[in-house]
Amino acid sequence: MELKQDAQTYEMQHLLTYYECDETGHPSMSMLLSMISMASDEHSLSLGMDTALIQKTGGTWVVSGYEGRLNRKQPTFGENVILGTRAVAHNRFFAVREFWMTDDTHTVEYARLKAIFVFMNLATRRMESIPEAMIDPYESPAVKRIPRLKRPAKLGAEELLTQKEYRVRFFDLDANHHVNNARYFDWLLDPLGRTFLREHRPKQFSLQYLQEVRNGQMVVSRVSKPQPTADQQVTRHEIKTADQVNTIAEIEWY
Amino acid sequence: MELKQDAQTYEMQHLLTYYECDETGHPSMSMLLSMISMASDEHSLSLGMDTALIQKTGGTWVVSGYEGRLNRKQPTFGENVILGTRAVAHNRFFAVREFWMTDDTHTVEYARLKAIFVFMNLATRRMESIPEAMIDPYESPAVKRIPRLKRPAKLGAEELLTQKEYRVRFFDLDANHHVNNARYFDWLLDPLGRTFLREHRPKQFSLQYLQEVRNGQMVVSRVSKPQPTADQQVTRHEIKTADQVNTIAEIEWY
Repeated sequence: MELKQDAQTYEMQHLLTYYECDETGHPSMSMLLSMISMASDEHSLSLGMDTALIQKTGGTWVVSGYEGRLNRKQPTFGENVILGTRAVAHNRFFAVREFWMTDDTHTVEYARLKAIFVFMNLATRRMESIPEAMIDPYESPAVKRIPRLKRPAKLGAEELLTQKEYRVRFFDLDANHHVNNARYFDWLLDPLGRTFLREHRPKQFSLQYLQEVRNGQMVVSRVSKPQPTADQQVTRHEIKTADQVNTIAEIEWY
Repeated sequence: MELKQDAQTYEMQHLLTYYECDETGHPSMSMLLSMISMASDEHSLSLGMDTALIQKTGGTWVVSGYEGRLNRKQPTFGENVILGTRAVAHNRFFAVREFWMTDDTHTVEYARLKAIFVFMNLATRRMESIPEAMIDPYESPAVKRIPRLKRPAKLGAEELLTQKEYRVRFFDLDANHHVNNARYFDWLLDPLGRTFLREHRPKQFSLQYLQEVRNGQMVVSRVSKPQPTADQQVTRHEIKTADQVNTIAEIEWY
């Protein structure tokens, strides 16, 4: 297997495990996001940027949103896949990164995603300009304007909804002491129910993180009821804590 | 790195990911169980026993219990570890398997576990004798008596308890259409709370699965209140659905 690795691009082989897959035998959305963020961690490591070095800046990378497209064909647990990522472009405040998951010969592309990263000051919890030492090693082009991701449509006030409540659990938190980004997808999708989730698969999605969910909070995940007669099946999602909207997403389904 | 692989024993290298670790930066118990069961899946695959072949028997392997011991020193995400497993012994109904996780030079042993497996008929949902084709390839010795695992002490009727309720979610189910074995550990530990789980780490544990939790059920996880003054800190756990006890466990903590 040939893996592409230079300053801007990083690919790694990954054995898709049983526990990264849901009942369908294919990776769940939260595990897909977890796997690709592993690829970008490995990318950083390969360029000498380890956790200690990042922490010394007093800040951390935070994803503000994703958009992506998935193949109808998805890999099955036990399969070797290639996870790839590329630092596409950046300006003072934003960095765009592309991700992909393919089969082990680069023949079938299972997923392609784009993410916008910002750099957050850990003391003020506010965005700050990206430190040069944190971006230069990727050799991504500096640009004036960063193309925006598709903004998910909002849930309409009159829409038929399904909603469920979730309590943040200890094992939802990651080593960054926050609810792991990827976990939001379990909350977003679970209210759709087992029958729908066994029979449908995401085709396209966009997601925007507006406000982080904190430990101990109860979240409400609200989803527009899928309309089974439409030929293009789309669901709109929001995650709220009290009156705060934390995350919005829109998903088109196969 | 030298990996031991023969019929009875299988070792594999594994890059410990961020999402296999909890807030402490070390693997959570549920992820430890997930990782070692990946090792036994790979062991079976390496001997030609894939999912299709196992399914043809009309049955499946089921873990009835675990016991284990963990080092105070645990690996951190980003570290390469060795996951190992050995088919220790079997009789007509039970198979014993040992598991370990070490650093990438076999110098530090992070964890050593033992599990008892039974073979369940998928139609009757009852235990059946292990098909020869499912056990012979491991070349594990056939024995008369299988040593029992340590049985977890039961929660006393008078004990001070903490308890929390959990609803089974879609992403708790695995490709076997059941709540994944490893997930029980998230329910077992979560009621202990963030402060306790950040400051303590499992040293020894034993766990027994009595009755499986099914999709859509609500589980109650009950835990004896840790006594912070004792020099040997032990918690006793049970998971119940209605009046049924599904799982019991006992954990000694560092």
